[in-house]
Amino acid sequence: MISLKTPKVVVLGAGYGGLMTVTRLQKLVGINQADITLVNKNEYHYETTWLHEASAGTLHHDKCRYNIKDVIDTNKVKFIQDTVKKINKEEKKVILENGEISYDYLVISLGAHPETFGIKGLKEHTFSISNINSARHIREHIEYQFATYNTEQEKDDSRLTLVVGGAGFTGIEFLGELANRIPELCREYDVDHKKVRIICVEAAPTALPGFDPELVDYAMNYLQKKGVEFKIGTMIKEANEHGIIVAKDDKLEEIKAGTVVWAAGVRGNSLVEEAGFENMRGRVKVEKDLRVPNNDHVFIIGDCALIINEETERPYPPTAQIAMQQGETCAKNIAVLIKGQGELIEFKADIKGTVASLGEDDAVGVAFGKKMVGTKASFMKKMIDNRALHMIGGAGLVLKKREV
Amino acid sequence: MISLKTPKVVVLGAGYGGLMTVTRLQKLVGINQADITLVNKNEYHYETTWLHEASAGTLHHDKCRYNIKDVIDTNKVKFIQDTVKKINKEEKKVILENGEISYDYLVISLGAHPETFGIKGLKEHTFSISNINSARHIREHIEYQFATYNTEQEKDDSRLTLVVGGAGFTGIEFLGELANRIPELCREYDVDHKKVRIICVEAAPTALPGFDPELVDYAMNYLQKKGVEFKIGTMIKEANEHGIIVAKDDKLEEIKAGTVVWAAGVRGNSLVEEAGFENMRGRVKVEKDLRVPNNDHVFIIGDCALIINEETERPYPPTAQIAMQQGETCAKNIAVLIKGQGELIEFKADIKGTVASLGEDDAVGVAFGKKMVGTKASFMKKMIDNRALHMIGGAGLVLKKREV
Repeated sequence: MISLKTPKVVVLGAGYGGLMTVTRLQKLVGINQADITLVNKNEYHYETTWLHEASAGTLHHDKCRYNIKDVIDTNKVKFIQDTVKKINKEEKKVILENGEISYDYLVISLGAHPETFGIKGLKEHTFSISNINSARHIREHIEYQFATYNTEQEKDDSRLTLVVGGAGFTGIEFLGELANRIPELCREYDVDHKKVRIICVEAAPTALPGFDPELVDYAMNYLQKKGVEFKIGTMIKEANEHGIIVAKDDKLEEIKAGTVVWAAGVRGNSLVEEAGFENMRGRVKVEKDLRVPNNDHVFIIGDCALIINEETERPYPPTAQIAMQQGETCAKNIAVLIKGQGELIEFKADIKGTVASLGEDDAVGVAFGKKMVGTKASFMKKMIDNRALHMIGGAGLVLKKREV
Repeated sequence: MISLKTPKVVVLGAGYGGLMTVTRLQKLVGINQADITLVNKNEYHYETTWLHEASAGTLHHDKCRYNIKDVIDTNKVKFIQDTVKKINKEEKKVILENGEISYDYLVISLGAHPETFGIKGLKEHTFSISNINSARHIREHIEYQFATYNTEQEKDDSRLTLVVGGAGFTGIEFLGELANRIPELCREYDVDHKKVRIICVEAAPTALPGFDPELVDYAMNYLQKKGVEFKIGTMIKEANEHGIIVAKDDKLEEIKAGTVVWAAGVRGNSLVEEAGFENMRGRVKVEKDLRVPNNDHVFIIGDCALIINEETERPYPPTAQIAMQQGETCAKNIAVLIKGQGELIEFKADIKGTVASLGEDDAVGVAFGKKMVGTKASFMKKMIDNRALHMIGGAGLVLKKREV
């Protein structure tokens, strides 16, 4: 018999954090102890950490996603494919495009939005590596530029110029894939490789800010050898239909480019702002148990959660690794609240490693406290990726997704 | 010893006609009897008869081309990769983009241009299935429309509407491939098949004009079952950035479409007009020996040659089959002129069959005097295609190009 008072748990978003919460929670609570509902726009989960490959066209996007129903226990979790329109925290309900749903406990794991820092034209004229749709849009946009090039009487070389805004983690990984992809595109579309330019613009005084300088050098040298031009300490002032305008030391330069991908950072989700939680650009400074201050029934995890790393005194970055660890903590805490026994635990990040790939078989990073580059780093990167699959879907999912 | 008076034979264009001329001529004349030069824009020959497949994306464009040097005897034929800018018949020379070349005998086998009948906006806003560049441009344009669809907040269904102008041979064959390609695209880009429209607009009172009505019915039924909508007896009045405007019985209708492919006919090459030969829209009414009236040293074959079929009192259509047969006649006649022995022969068309494919495994047509549909017609179509390869490059080329 199902109790009328079975608490309703609603999880918004099936990214790394949300999916980890649900897959852990379905093990922690019995079938009559909670009504668990997972809401997600798509019927699939996508691997944000691989989207740069799908965007460059080096990995098919179907390899970057799997069906949510393959990893949730549908006896315990109800899956609703819908889009969240509004979170009404006062009435404890969530408005969806096609209905609404009330909750006793809410987990907001909605993921990030691109941060454009108010730069003129950026939103209209650049692409961002955000999801499956945007990744294949980038892939096809680049292909279309190459396919168009030879059809025009007056050749427009800017069609073959690709700009990546940002030399952070995503920017560097995307550059690595692009550098591998360009020779294929040149062959496919009968384009002279020498006509192609890949330019990376980074406002900070270094690429890969936060990485060891030796690793930064390695990554930049590697990519430069493959044809990437870096413009470090250079700001994008404007994006328009022809490309971008950049500034370094007050000197303006126009770069004509058929493709501009903005990979210089993310911010929290606008739904979090609109819900009325105290936030900083869509991110909420949550309690150590991951609940929202003064909102005991609402957890925020992943890209919309702001937690300060006490060692560095800076916020944890919005990574898959952190989001999944938060999902584990969140699931445990919800189980405690539902069962009314045990104690809420505090989230503790355990960063195994940070490795940025430079294409198929090279990478730079730190894992288990050791700096590494080359095939060793590349191997470690794959281990980390596999671990994420394993944590959510077990060995079966790893085998299904990866050629091991 | 090479005689100083060795006649110079220049062949412009390595399409079906030009390549057949050269490959036959290199067998008919000795190494010291003629300086043969073949000029072509690309280093490859492409199979115009397969371009509709490359355009739809059902066959890779590399399968629709082969290297010219694979079929010419480079001991006897000099190949120049260049673009013809002008034919100066008075001075017997040809101006190329990167030089010029004089001739004693000239073969103009430059191929057709799309005929737009002066319809407003057609040239600017539609695609044509003309060559490798345009074929892959169409393929990528369609893909890009599908890839863009899901990235937009407000879905624009017209991105998924494809219009084919013309239900003639090329239009019908392209529709057959498109109908097969759409389900793949829907899967690739997570698009609902029901949102996709394929519309064929034909001004004539029937599809496949010139075909037996029974075959026309078969083809139309087949394509309709696969989702193609026909608008027969309907004129395209205008093409613009949103799609096309059509008229039937003075009633105007706007059709919004992300892709419009114009496949309603071709005309002769503008270089032929500019050369000052008497012509009708770039086509020259040649003598029975394929020479231009009053220009004994110039042959025109293929799409720029106008020859009346005495049985039907209509011009022969611009097909690969006719162009190749003209190439054979042309080669024989040049050999006669060079050697100064024998007699010039008259071109006689021998139409083995006319089969329009409806996709991978269906077709309609007439071969060896028999009407046929279905797999039988499809088989015949492949035989005709293989025969063309065989005539130009021998069994080796057939084996190389086809999974036999």
